[in-house]
Amino acid sequence: MTDTMQRIVLASRPEGAPAHVNFRLEDTPLPEPGDGEVLVRVHYLSLDPYMRGRMDDAKSYAKPVEVGQTMEGGAVGEVIASNSDLFKPGEFAFGMFGWASHGVLPAKALQKLSPDLAPISTALGVLGMPGLTAWHGLTSIGKPQHGETLVVAAATGPVGSMVGQLAKARGLRAVGIAGGPEKCRLAVETFGFDACLDHRAHPDAASLREALAAECPDGIDIYFENVGGKVLESVLPLMNVGGRIPLCGMIAWYSGADLGDRNLLPAAWRAILVKRLLVQGFIIFDAYHRLPDFLEEVAPKVASGEVSYLEDITEGLENAPDAFMAMLKGGNTGKTVVKLV
Amino acid sequence: MTDTMQRIVLASRPEGAPAHVNFRLEDTPLPEPGDGEVLVRVHYLSLDPYMRGRMDDAKSYAKPVEVGQTMEGGAVGEVIASNSDLFKPGEFAFGMFGWASHGVLPAKALQKLSPDLAPISTALGVLGMPGLTAWHGLTSIGKPQHGETLVVAAATGPVGSMVGQLAKARGLRAVGIAGGPEKCRLAVETFGFDACLDHRAHPDAASLREALAAECPDGIDIYFENVGGKVLESVLPLMNVGGRIPLCGMIAWYSGADLGDRNLLPAAWRAILVKRLLVQGFIIFDAYHRLPDFLEEVAPKVASGEVSYLEDITEGLENAPDAFMAMLKGGNTGKTVVKLV
Repeated sequence: MTDTMQRIVLASRPEGAPAHVNFRLEDTPLPEPGDGEVLVRVHYLSLDPYMRGRMDDAKSYAKPVEVGQTMEGGAVGEVIASNSDLFKPGEFAFGMFGWASHGVLPAKALQKLSPDLAPISTALGVLGMPGLTAWHGLTSIGKPQHGETLVVAAATGPVGSMVGQLAKARGLRAVGIAGGPEKCRLAVETFGFDACLDHRAHPDAASLREALAAECPDGIDIYFENVGGKVLESVLPLMNVGGRIPLCGMIAWYSGADLGDRNLLPAAWRAILVKRLLVQGFIIFDAYHRLPDFLEEVAPKVASGEVSYLEDITEGLENAPDAFMAMLKGGNTGKTVVKLV
Repeated sequence: MTDTMQRIVLASRPEGAPAHVNFRLEDTPLPEPGDGEVLVRVHYLSLDPYMRGRMDDAKSYAKPVEVGQTMEGGAVGEVIASNSDLFKPGEFAFGMFGWASHGVLPAKALQKLSPDLAPISTALGVLGMPGLTAWHGLTSIGKPQHGETLVVAAATGPVGSMVGQLAKARGLRAVGIAGGPEKCRLAVETFGFDACLDHRAHPDAASLREALAAECPDGIDIYFENVGGKVLESVLPLMNVGGRIPLCGMIAWYSGADLGDRNLLPAAWRAILVKRLLVQGFIIFDAYHRLPDFLEEVAPKVASGEVSYLEDITEGLENAPDAFMAMLKGGNTGKTVVKLV
């Protein structure tokens, strides 16, 4: 066993879109597990949009990553040393190990995985945080009703693709939005969306709205909000009375995208008032207690192939920054993971 | 009995703040009630911020008033002729008679009033739509909990003053916002707010926010939203995790007030996400079925004096436009009514 490990730290805070200069790969001594702790060798590291928020020094639902600290993130890997009765070496676990080749965490902070049930990488995507985000936001805030219409952006991403599939399974019309014709094709063919619009083909919100209106002849009842920006601006006027907007992200605005016009907040407030909309923010860390219910419904469907998922796999920890930056620009198609082993 | 009546029609649509040119006083023949209808002589006419929205040709929750049509509005008056078993001449009723001295409506569209219970003008304010708006928004969306902090603007207005009194009765800290030191004094002394801030003393949102933060040491759990604009911008960063924002109006933006910065929608969306806020629009016409429950709780408190209310009474239908325009600029202190008889 090697006595060093690798990690990627936040070298400096980005202004707008992150760049290479904001990350630094380091070698550090391999830590030893203390009492009740386990040492894990990471196989797959998750890259998610929320991590962009952690790079800023702004007050948020979680503390920012400090400059010089390991970039935060969930990962799955194999236990290689254990000082806990809960784990034996050779078992697999999910935990918040960060962007690192190895990590030590209390055994109680880990979630044990069964590699027989599904590939362990799915614990980062379709059966992990993104899948739970989709399921929790849709069921607890979206409250989908048979025959309604749902819109979600990043439709081939791990959240959007799950939202679409769950909506279809509940008898809704599901309209996706994605970047480029290839993703739109995947959204319809792989994930079963009724239609998918390429936001890149629409230079402004008015154009995108016109296309959305054509695909949503009965209006929009649920807008699962994970992007903000132009898509939000397009969707709001099409919302039906009593519509619901679960809000879990705003990736379009994370890295300094165009803020839009000055009248957007008044226009949004007016839409919420006139249509009696419900807009509710949620973060998945509030809903981890629902993970067992989620897995009970969705894990068998992943195993049977009824629920599809896509992974964008990048090899090597040193390539994580590039994969992360590409994801923020929409370069990913499915769940972005970095394969370390 | 006279055979003519007076009414005020929408003469033209306003751009921004309404002006005299947008209204016209007309004499018209007194209508005769048809089968099942009653003729009412209006005693008090209600003036409310929502009417500003009806003057625009924009899609909203209700049709706009057409140019040449009577301005919409609720009113209370005495039945002077009846072709219905439901009403006898001499009885009092509330109905949507518009800005007019008389009106004919189906008896079923009227609500009978007991002048012994409370002055009939209260059916336009503290025991009418504004009171119900406050009670419904606070109880069904705000879900106040003992010990929480609530903020509401237009704190001496008919909605804000009721919100504050209901919040205090439920054990919350209630902080009002109003225009000018006299209104702020009334908010505290007459309506029992713990504190009231004069928004005119704060040139920008940052200044108002600093003052609010000092009066809300535990943050804000409920922001009852009826104004938008600078107050909203001040409040959002102070909201606590899990806060609720019942949204029933945005008077600051109705007549072309400053729209604020371009980053307001991203900032609002970020606050909703990070604080997991619930924002829900509602209009009182969706909640009229709750009127009996509301009256059961609040009417005895009005009769006993436990719940206070203020009325701004203008005499004469011809003065309704002036009173309406003044109200939109914050010139009213309590419920704005026009006394016709």
